[in-house]
Amino acid sequence: MKRALLASLRRSPAAPCLLSKRYVSAFGYTQAKALVYSRYGQPKDVLSLHSHSIAPAYNDEITVKFLASPINPADINQIEGVYPSKPPFTTALGTPEPCAVGGNEGVVEVVAVGAKVPDFKPGDRAIMRSVGFGTWRTHASAKSSHLLKIPDDKAITPIQAATISVNPCTAYRMLKDFTPLERGDWFIQNGANSGVGRSAIQFGRLWGLKSVNVIRDRDNADELKKELEALGADVVVTESELADRDRMQEVKRLAGKKGMKLGLNCVGGKATTDLLRQLGHGGHLVTYGGMSRQPITVPTSLFIFKDLHLHGFWVSVWSDKHPEEKQAMVEEIFGYITSGEFKDTPVQETVWTPTTKVDVLKEAVARSGQAFGGKKQVFIFKEE
Amino acid sequence: MKRALLASLRRSPAAPCLLSKRYVSAFGYTQAKALVYSRYGQPKDVLSLHSHSIAPAYNDEITVKFLASPINPADINQIEGVYPSKPPFTTALGTPEPCAVGGNEGVVEVVAVGAKVPDFKPGDRAIMRSVGFGTWRTHASAKSSHLLKIPDDKAITPIQAATISVNPCTAYRMLKDFTPLERGDWFIQNGANSGVGRSAIQFGRLWGLKSVNVIRDRDNADELKKELEALGADVVVTESELADRDRMQEVKRLAGKKGMKLGLNCVGGKATTDLLRQLGHGGHLVTYGGMSRQPITVPTSLFIFKDLHLHGFWVSVWSDKHPEEKQAMVEEIFGYITSGEFKDTPVQETVWTPTTKVDVLKEAVARSGQAFGGKKQVFIFKEE
Repeated sequence: MKRALLASLRRSPAAPCLLSKRYVSAFGYTQAKALVYSRYGQPKDVLSLHSHSIAPAYNDEITVKFLASPINPADINQIEGVYPSKPPFTTALGTPEPCAVGGNEGVVEVVAVGAKVPDFKPGDRAIMRSVGFGTWRTHASAKSSHLLKIPDDKAITPIQAATISVNPCTAYRMLKDFTPLERGDWFIQNGANSGVGRSAIQFGRLWGLKSVNVIRDRDNADELKKELEALGADVVVTESELADRDRMQEVKRLAGKKGMKLGLNCVGGKATTDLLRQLGHGGHLVTYGGMSRQPITVPTSLFIFKDLHLHGFWVSVWSDKHPEEKQAMVEEIFGYITSGEFKDTPVQETVWTPTTKVDVLKEAVARSGQAFGGKKQVFIFKEE
Repeated sequence: MKRALLASLRRSPAAPCLLSKRYVSAFGYTQAKALVYSRYGQPKDVLSLHSHSIAPAYNDEITVKFLASPINPADINQIEGVYPSKPPFTTALGTPEPCAVGGNEGVVEVVAVGAKVPDFKPGDRAIMRSVGFGTWRTHASAKSSHLLKIPDDKAITPIQAATISVNPCTAYRMLKDFTPLERGDWFIQNGANSGVGRSAIQFGRLWGLKSVNVIRDRDNADELKKELEALGADVVVTESELADRDRMQEVKRLAGKKGMKLGLNCVGGKATTDLLRQLGHGGHLVTYGGMSRQPITVPTSLFIFKDLHLHGFWVSVWSDKHPEEKQAMVEEIFGYITSGEFKDTPVQETVWTPTTKVDVLKEAVARSGQAFGGKKQVFIFKEE
């Protein structure tokens, strides 16, 4: 009853002056846990699990609980301090030292809203509007400006919502923003098995584009080829197949006289040079990752005589610059998901309950840090 | 008198049916010599001097004599067969085997015109409209479509006219076409001592742009620095100076917060990677040569986090696609030359008279083929 009274008071326009933070601190607080770091380093060394309380949502505050938060490679680089985007360290969570919360992508459910929050209500689901919020935590206090509401459709799973902002959005923009592609045009990508790669295959299929998909050499290549073909890949080749002179020519002929117009690259090194050689005159290569940790090497002749253009893409910066376009894009992608036309990337879930030990969480982070390894890691938050 | 009669007959509309080629072959022929090749290889092995006669200009034909023709590095590559643009081999000059004439750039004076040539008259000077005409020859029979008339201003020397199409035009387009530059903006280039480099320095000065100019390490670096500064270079550094950490930071600070917007590259290898690191966020690098014969190596992070864009530029293709813009550009540059605002690149002249031996000509070609060496080579044609 006290809670209901408090809520009614807090929703009344006259209420704020009656309610000091100190007053409400006696009850209605949310117990939260967050994976934080107060210095840069290896995640296993610097991450710790911090417990704190969140005051009831007041004024323009929104209390959210996390439903799912992925662990992206960039999250690891951020903790290592080698990523250009660094969230500020603060003592807002009552940590002894200033710290930041790990993670950048995630989906939340609104638990409570302050009186001055017209656009969200309890039960709404939302994703992060930008990077840097810190998503490896059970609960948070947010503002409207941090959140992008997602459609109220239970067909969208928490994992789908939690993983839409980085991988599918990256693939979407790279296929749209660098060179005009018409139905029937070809593109080529490496890392085709990644989250971005699988998204690009599916957008390609939905938009009438043809794709050549390069995967690393592996034991189960045939199985993976079938899996990607089922998503809509037109051609899947391994790196060593693409490096073979005959197969290289064969792939090149696929796109006919026009040639491949676009390449998507997340590898680097020789694999990327081989990819570049597939592009047609005037083609564009967009780099969004460098999993091999090797630079990109380009023969001068490809610039001068083939008129190739090389670019990079970083979805975080794009999202910050284009909030409205991001919203429209996300809605379009959720439309594909709910109509069953867009499939998830396989993930490995780590359940995070109020009693989960920090070591379990750190192991999930460590698994994600393994370059070229395994599935995408995702925290799934449960109440018990 | 016979000539005058012939000319009057040939200019009369009824004349052509009266005048067979066989008839005019008895007189009025021009004795010409051309450096030709009938197979690809080292210029010293495959070039030969071919003598032939050119029939008097008939109908839409224009007889031209060459005044000056440079030897560009691309001309050598073309003869070696490693250049993508290859002129067709023909027997038009009466050679025993089909052959092509060397050279692509040059300036001519019109000697005679056929009756159906409204736009040229004897004494007019012209440059080649496109590549592939073959300019290492004393005379040629051309059509209007091959020629771009130049201003009737004796202040324009044959060497200036002969060398305008490749180097100044390349520099001009690279500064104009890849990213918008405003007065006060900075660009950086390597090979600053080359024909393109010197042109870029001067356009930069004329257009209010600031330039950082990288030259190779050499004994006379200080002398060369002064020479380039006199052309308008704001900063000149050697490759090893630019590779020095402190100097690198110092150069980077020149462009302030905006950063360098554009880089021009004709080297490759480490020198180009160092150049890339100077570019500001969102900067563009344009490659127009690869003198070190090493590829361009780009760390992935420069694409993703610095949003760099890499392109190539090939003036031959550009000229073929934009004939009207080329004419306007060439007129603008001739304007700078006649007003004294644009200085020549130093050249080494080889005089070509009717009695010059083939070995003398081939030595000039060999000098041009020396990578990183000496001055630009130019044939100067004299009657005696």
